[in-house]
Amino acid sequence: MKVLLLFFFLATIIATCQGASHPVVGHHKPGFNCLSWRLTVETNNIRDWAVVPQACVSYVGHYMLGYQYREDAQAVADAAYNYAKSTPLIKEFRNTWIFDLGDTVLSSLPYYAQPDIAFGGTKYDSTKLAIWEMKGIAPAVPGILDLYKKLQSIGYKIVIISGRFESLRAVIIKNLNNLGFPNWEKLILKQTSDEGTTSLVFKEKKRNELIAQGYRIIGNVGDQWSDLLGEHAGYRTFKVPNPMYYD
Amino acid sequence: MKVLLLFFFLATIIATCQGASHPVVGHHKPGFNCLSWRLTVETNNIRDWAVVPQACVSYVGHYMLGYQYREDAQAVADAAYNYAKSTPLIKEFRNTWIFDLGDTVLSSLPYYAQPDIAFGGTKYDSTKLAIWEMKGIAPAVPGILDLYKKLQSIGYKIVIISGRFESLRAVIIKNLNNLGFPNWEKLILKQTSDEGTTSLVFKEKKRNELIAQGYRIIGNVGDQWSDLLGEHAGYRTFKVPNPMYYD
Repeated sequence: MKVLLLFFFLATIIATCQGASHPVVGHHKPGFNCLSWRLTVETNNIRDWAVVPQACVSYVGHYMLGYQYREDAQAVADAAYNYAKSTPLIKEFRNTWIFDLGDTVLSSLPYYAQPDIAFGGTKYDSTKLAIWEMKGIAPAVPGILDLYKKLQSIGYKIVIISGRFESLRAVIIKNLNNLGFPNWEKLILKQTSDEGTTSLVFKEKKRNELIAQGYRIIGNVGDQWSDLLGEHAGYRTFKVPNPMYYD
Repeated sequence: MKVLLLFFFLATIIATCQGASHPVVGHHKPGFNCLSWRLTVETNNIRDWAVVPQACVSYVGHYMLGYQYREDAQAVADAAYNYAKSTPLIKEFRNTWIFDLGDTVLSSLPYYAQPDIAFGGTKYDSTKLAIWEMKGIAPAVPGILDLYKKLQSIGYKIVIISGRFESLRAVIIKNLNNLGFPNWEKLILKQTSDEGTTSLVFKEKKRNELIAQGYRIIGNVGDQWSDLLGEHAGYRTFKVPNPMYYD
């Protein structure tokens, strides 16, 4: 009996162990490898995807709430800081580091973890998300507050560029202050006139304006490739993991 | 006794299961997460790295020889084909798909799997690698032959651009023929005059020449970001996994 019990315990362990590539819970689709799907997302091999594949909802949830996402986000912060500190800054220049906001600085994981949002497994609902964002209760993305402060301490000016609208400014500032993000140089948000502009185009335009104003963009951190591609993206870019949505 | 044996068996399974992030074999460095390291490599967050970190040699070896690398490479091929077949081709144009050669088409995994090469854990040795490449015995990267043939069947011209030198042309052609890669449009290799040119600059220059000749670059597949960045990189690019070296 004991041996039998141990056998089932063993089987469970093996099943759980393999769960990373073959989620046991949820709508498993045989042959669909969620680790591979996540890698294709992170490397920008697949684009314009609307929802997390049903077969990977459980996998993405475990990833985002678990150890590995935190480790992956911290590794990005470490890579960014290693580059930043090895780059000789010219004091006369406005040496700048760009941060995206949503899921680069402010995490929307508590929103995405709600059962009806299912880590991006259900259709994007801009109204529902806006209501949550209005609350201003986002935690910080792992590793990012430390990176932010360390970049400032070695002489970088921090510019945050977000696709969120000006109407959210007060809420965002309060949220950032509550989390302890100090003294940004600029917090650039969308104006009503920017409505309908894609994230890629909007952010490129804002970076071009910064360059025209004498800012020198050294680094750029974002969870979406639209933060990191286009003109004046920065000498180096750093992709924060996000398998929950494409923007 | 049986229970004890099962306990150790169980402990081994758990240790092996966790081995993905914490390699049991090799020089494990506590706190160094090899899954995170690989993700930072694949997303181009870290660049110009010389060798695989010692802590991750065992992990990279298991990854490259195991199931997940094959799945990841196949997922890239699938993503590329899904894009290719959904793109309306204009018959009058020379619709082109670019392939890098080394570790995108021809796998150097048998070379890297040698104990003294240690999956990129030892210093890059151009002479040793050249001697191996001269043999022309590379297998195909998983999923790539099928992608290559399917792209041809729907009307794409295949152009291979490689940083390998012209002196290897006969060996490369024989290797490609042996593996069944048919009818490429061009196989572009480095001339002696290209010596010292970086991969990024060389490949951009060759793509610019293709554009001037009337080729229209739709897609581009490569295992290095230097294959996929720069001018005329293609409407879409596809990053094949490679945690063994940076070029």
